[in-house]
Amino acid sequence: MNFNLEESIEILERTPQTLEQLLTGLSDGWLQSNEGEGTWNAFEVVNHLIECEKTNWMPRLETMLQERKNQHLPPFDRFAHLRLSTEVSIEEKLKEFKTLRTENITKLRKLIDPELHLEQTGFHPAFGVVRVRELLSTWTVHDFTHIAQIVRVMAKRYRTDVGPWKEYLSIFK
Amino acid sequence: MNFNLEESIEILERTPQTLEQLLTGLSDGWLQSNEGEGTWNAFEVVNHLIECEKTNWMPRLETMLQERKNQHLPPFDRFAHLRLSTEVSIEEKLKEFKTLRTENITKLRKLIDPELHLEQTGFHPAFGVVRVRELLSTWTVHDFTHIAQIVRVMAKRYRTDVGPWKEYLSIFK
Repeated sequence: MNFNLEESIEILERTPQTLEQLLTGLSDGWLQSNEGEGTWNAFEVVNHLIECEKTNWMPRLETMLQERKNQHLPPFDRFAHLRLSTEVSIEEKLKEFKTLRTENITKLRKLIDPELHLEQTGFHPAFGVVRVRELLSTWTVHDFTHIAQIVRVMAKRYRTDVGPWKEYLSIFK
Repeated sequence: MNFNLEESIEILERTPQTLEQLLTGLSDGWLQSNEGEGTWNAFEVVNHLIECEKTNWMPRLETMLQERKNQHLPPFDRFAHLRLSTEVSIEEKLKEFKTLRTENITKLRKLIDPELHLEQTGFHPAFGVVRVRELLSTWTVHDFTHIAQIVRVMAKRYRTDVGPWKEYLSIFK
């Protein structure tokens, strides 16, 4: 097991600023590019991260910390963000994500004592019993997943432009 | 074709600051994690990006802009960075990358007139004739590839820690 609360928080607190540096001021060609029908562009990924801050990680964590064991985790709609407005700028969205994330990290530090709470459990609709340390590891890896998704989606815009170098570029595989 | 010089520069100029936000101050557990023997950790990826700024993109571009057509591109050693020192901090490495990248973008703007130079060619050792616009597209996608690599490598550190959620996390696939 590699999970460590402080090391996870290192990642969680860097993601908003990483995305801010990557996406602020980018032209629409990059921000609106996706991988084809039914796939997400960078803007939609940020909306999804916002939705997760609001309705996924903290509500689930709070459920797992309740006294009654193996409480059912609140459901999370992985597509809810697609119903959110895309009328606001990416900069406003990134700011919203950063604010929510900062608040959630503060809550997380208050709620979790690594000596006491990491083995607490909840009941996941698909997986059954899951642990606090698994939820927190997932939150961390979920950030990585979506940073990787954003750069992959943008890379694909140049899939044919790179000519024969396509062969050397693992991101297309 | 989607390639556009100004849009490519948007990405090229954001990569150093994106990596700076992602990696500065991270603990060694993250920075020294790799995907197994013969694979690169985040530190080594940054070293590779530095090596490319020095000996890949600009020397190749300059060769392609020479008057004699289809000049042989200078070779590039994709593993040269593994011989570089890892004694300095990640912060110093990121600073070096940022300085080199800034200089190269300035040179790029001076050297390239998109109306004149994008179809200029050179001779690549494996691919034969390649064009300036393909080299510049590749430079851009190469940044995306290595940002994706860094987050994937770090994600894998928690591959078992996420428990059953592994199934939902595309970065492990």
